[in-house]
Amino acid sequence: MFIAGIDLGGTNIKFGIFSKEGELLKSWKASSKPLLDPKVIPDYIFDELKRYEQWAEIKALGIGVPGLVSVDGIVKESPNFPDWKDVPVKQMLSEKLGIPVIVENDANLFTIGEGSFGNAKHCKNYVGITIGTGVGGGIVIDGNIVHGCKGMAGEIGHIVIHPSGPLCSCGKKGCLEAYSSATAIKKIMFHQTGLELEAEDVAKLALKGDKVALKVFEKVGYHLGIGIATIVNLLDVEVVVIGGGVSKSWDLLQKHIQKGFVEHTFKVHLDTVKIEKSLLGDNAGIFGGFFIATTVFNNSEVS
Amino acid sequence: MFIAGIDLGGTNIKFGIFSKEGELLKSWKASSKPLLDPKVIPDYIFDELKRYEQWAEIKALGIGVPGLVSVDGIVKESPNFPDWKDVPVKQMLSEKLGIPVIVENDANLFTIGEGSFGNAKHCKNYVGITIGTGVGGGIVIDGNIVHGCKGMAGEIGHIVIHPSGPLCSCGKKGCLEAYSSATAIKKIMFHQTGLELEAEDVAKLALKGDKVALKVFEKVGYHLGIGIATIVNLLDVEVVVIGGGVSKSWDLLQKHIQKGFVEHTFKVHLDTVKIEKSLLGDNAGIFGGFFIATTVFNNSEVS
Repeated sequence: MFIAGIDLGGTNIKFGIFSKEGELLKSWKASSKPLLDPKVIPDYIFDELKRYEQWAEIKALGIGVPGLVSVDGIVKESPNFPDWKDVPVKQMLSEKLGIPVIVENDANLFTIGEGSFGNAKHCKNYVGITIGTGVGGGIVIDGNIVHGCKGMAGEIGHIVIHPSGPLCSCGKKGCLEAYSSATAIKKIMFHQTGLELEAEDVAKLALKGDKVALKVFEKVGYHLGIGIATIVNLLDVEVVVIGGGVSKSWDLLQKHIQKGFVEHTFKVHLDTVKIEKSLLGDNAGIFGGFFIATTVFNNSEVS
Repeated sequence: MFIAGIDLGGTNIKFGIFSKEGELLKSWKASSKPLLDPKVIPDYIFDELKRYEQWAEIKALGIGVPGLVSVDGIVKESPNFPDWKDVPVKQMLSEKLGIPVIVENDANLFTIGEGSFGNAKHCKNYVGITIGTGVGGGIVIDGNIVHGCKGMAGEIGHIVIHPSGPLCSCGKKGCLEAYSSATAIKKIMFHQTGLELEAEDVAKLALKGDKVALKVFEKVGYHLGIGIATIVNLLDVEVVVIGGGVSKSWDLLQKHIQKGFVEHTFKVHLDTVKIEKSLLGDNAGIFGGFFIATTVFNNSEVS
């Protein structure tokens, strides 16, 4: 038997096929654009899974979706897929595939992946942060992901860093996302230089020693460190794992993250809290998918 | 049989005797000063409990202590009781009294009290905030109080409101406690007027229409609302209950709390999240003590 983990993003959808022991046997990507129309979800995903020769032996599926996911696997809304409104993804896929399916928010799936196989392994209290265009996150308390009342917990990008700070994509001022995201990197760089560069290009400049670009990453890292201090002060977690595209600039960010953290957390946390880059990188989501799928598979076997 | 709830504060220690159904039968206060010496804890508390005629029928005790409490009921340290270092309060009291005892941080006990009998009744995800000299708090996720890795979760007073804000008692800058506590009220008033007034006196002036005093409460409430927005964005709780001495100035604070909250949280939370004043007031701690004591009593009966 095999277990599938799927990580749906705004551009790509990533598939992973795992042995039941959690060995990643095969992974591949496809475009997620066709999924803008929610009706195609079951067929599109079924056809992709069939690319694995022994697809008929896939016995459970865990999938991460960007957006608001209810506990019963309905995607209420998704910023990347505007036509998805109350889409019963779990039901659609389990009917089509005939196996147990579990649907989770993508940042939660990243967090679960890092907790089961990555840099938060064996942790009971930890946080995952994904930094790309926006900032997402997942919070694990006593071994369980926190969903909150409406499934909206983990909006780490909307920790308030400065009450009258820069405008955030959410319409509010001074959110972490307005300081520490790819969008913020672009904006700060533009503000400083007038150049319209992608975050990756700002990183390249910084790595070449460009002072303005280095300063941009200093600002991004420092404010991220402050946000992490607020999380640690509130939740007393032991590990914070950072993933997403911007985390690839770890060497540019790390010491500034640490500075913001040290300046705003309790001394006692400094010896015990680890702030780490994602170990699994782009695979964290599919590993998280494997982990939650295994849980529902085992439950379905018991019941 | 009866259950005792005790709430230890820096000035007073409050006792409550409850029926097993949770009816408060008797409550009283004593000075907590003698407890500066931790050796006297068992005798002092036993002697106080004996003031209840049927003390021999008290079958379990829940007690809240300001400071860092381990899961096994050891008080690691307490800002109010500097000589308490690794004091095994649970063991001391259960040996002396011969009944199950459970020890909890005082802000957590307040939060549990409001969740069991107060303004967060029937909530599974909520937060309690106590605002006095400092700002404490308790976080409940899926029905359980969050302790964190080292028992330090819930330090709501140390959410960062402004990275370079006023100095906090913890030595860091811009914590919520530096904006929204009795200490902050005194400091802001002094800064504005040169007058050395207690927070209660600033409240009295504000109630009389003093413009400077009103402005102080505006600032305190607004920043508290921002801190609450960060909590709600992160944890998607449904209720935030506010207690402690400063909450007595609710009428001066409420609309400003709401303003800070509205400006910094998602629209979807505005319809669902309630920010309330404590229902139980000074009794929240002893009700929380009753609740946790009942839990350990029931567990001890089963085992």
